[in-house]
Amino acid sequence: MQSINIFIERADNGSLERIDDDVAIEEPLEIRVNGAPIAITMRTPDHDEELALGWLFCEGIIRSMDDVASAEVSSNRVDILLAPHRDFKAASAMQRHVTNSSCGLCSKSSLDALALRDCALLPAYGPPVDPALVQDLPRRLRLGQSAFNRTGGLHAAGLFSNDGELLYLREDVGRHNALDKVIGASLSNSEQNEEESILMLSGRVSYELMQKALMASIPVVAAVGAPSSLAIAIAERFNMTLFGFVRSDGFNIYTGAHRIERF
Amino acid sequence: MQSINIFIERADNGSLERIDDDVAIEEPLEIRVNGAPIAITMRTPDHDEELALGWLFCEGIIRSMDDVASAEVSSNRVDILLAPHRDFKAASAMQRHVTNSSCGLCSKSSLDALALRDCALLPAYGPPVDPALVQDLPRRLRLGQSAFNRTGGLHAAGLFSNDGELLYLREDVGRHNALDKVIGASLSNSEQNEEESILMLSGRVSYELMQKALMASIPVVAAVGAPSSLAIAIAERFNMTLFGFVRSDGFNIYTGAHRIERF
Repeated sequence: MQSINIFIERADNGSLERIDDDVAIEEPLEIRVNGAPIAITMRTPDHDEELALGWLFCEGIIRSMDDVASAEVSSNRVDILLAPHRDFKAASAMQRHVTNSSCGLCSKSSLDALALRDCALLPAYGPPVDPALVQDLPRRLRLGQSAFNRTGGLHAAGLFSNDGELLYLREDVGRHNALDKVIGASLSNSEQNEEESILMLSGRVSYELMQKALMASIPVVAAVGAPSSLAIAIAERFNMTLFGFVRSDGFNIYTGAHRIERF
Repeated sequence: MQSINIFIERADNGSLERIDDDVAIEEPLEIRVNGAPIAITMRTPDHDEELALGWLFCEGIIRSMDDVASAEVSSNRVDILLAPHRDFKAASAMQRHVTNSSCGLCSKSSLDALALRDCALLPAYGPPVDPALVQDLPRRLRLGQSAFNRTGGLHAAGLFSNDGELLYLREDVGRHNALDKVIGASLSNSEQNEEESILMLSGRVSYELMQKALMASIPVVAAVGAPSSLAIAIAERFNMTLFGFVRSDGFNIYTGAHRIERF
């Protein structure tokens, strides 16, 4: 299954309505080789066996299907058994590859991992967010994207105060790096109060980006693109407000609509 | 420095011209804590100290600037020394985090790592690529993107034969996963000959995606978005052809223009 249908609120030319919407599913997949977990990737559930085989091939762990004795797919896990002739050292492979500490084996356990990591619920209420400001954030972000304007190849993250002042804007080829830079800048400035700030992202919103916003206690996240299912789940669980598809004349509210002022 | 200026060829309404263009820089950054390397991330060089601090904060390794005794930035490396009161076990942190095996400490060493990994040069010549087909690939890819059309939140990778037949199309919230799925599908079908195929990507092209295409011996990569500097460097080094900003009336050729037929 690649998408789920959920209810959201849609702001369109000054009016809010409740609509249903399809959202791309994001869930962790664990890849095991000869019984040992060697990677966890956040993916859209579909063609999981191909994903595992393609990943192992690109990492040089298999060279052809001759190296694969069997592949077994269960919920959010693929177990690959290598052919006996294929040498494999799980320990060194594991050390080399990604296993983001906050990924569990299903969305529930990864959200639990966040909670365990001292991610407290954000305050359910705070200063109201002006919908007219939300609609203007893409323009304000774009104004500061000097490198994007030259290359078309960089993502941006911008932290704004609740009244729309740009606090920090950073660009990077990686969306997560742009956000890490903003959070690092804010961290170095102890006068900053993230609890009344709005984060604007130039792309889509994944689990990883919401996790970073949560760690930094940023309650409101707005994005030009679509959020994943797991991004919405984090926002819901931790009292965050999540806007997607933000344009000059409207936006989607996925969760946390109580923070927004009436038009 | 966030971008570099290079010469490329631009196809526009049936004519080819040589222009100069700004490209976003992508290079690895190593993050060290108390002397131990704990993460390598592919990033745009700029605000490296903030990036390291923000990343460490989001991973829970520092909780505030009080946990940081010093931060030292050198080329493509940030060394963080933690305050004595802050407990830190490098070994367990390292095991949890990304260090993609193909990342070195500079673009040169990462390209060398690819070469060492049995990434042979692709054949410099092959069947000519029809520019009219290249321009039509975004439309052909979009036709198969059923989940994107519903959600707006999924990337796609499509493998096409040299005469434009769609071989495999896969969608995922992660660009790299979509490509792994295509490569895994192709791997399972031994009749496939990647050496005459064209890969079409729905987004931008990073180092990681070009590395995967190279591992799969796909000589021609086309993308709707911009390539990074390191994506272009891989294409050049390994005889690949790289198209970016592909539209119905034109595209950029970053390297490997010898494969393309005249209009």
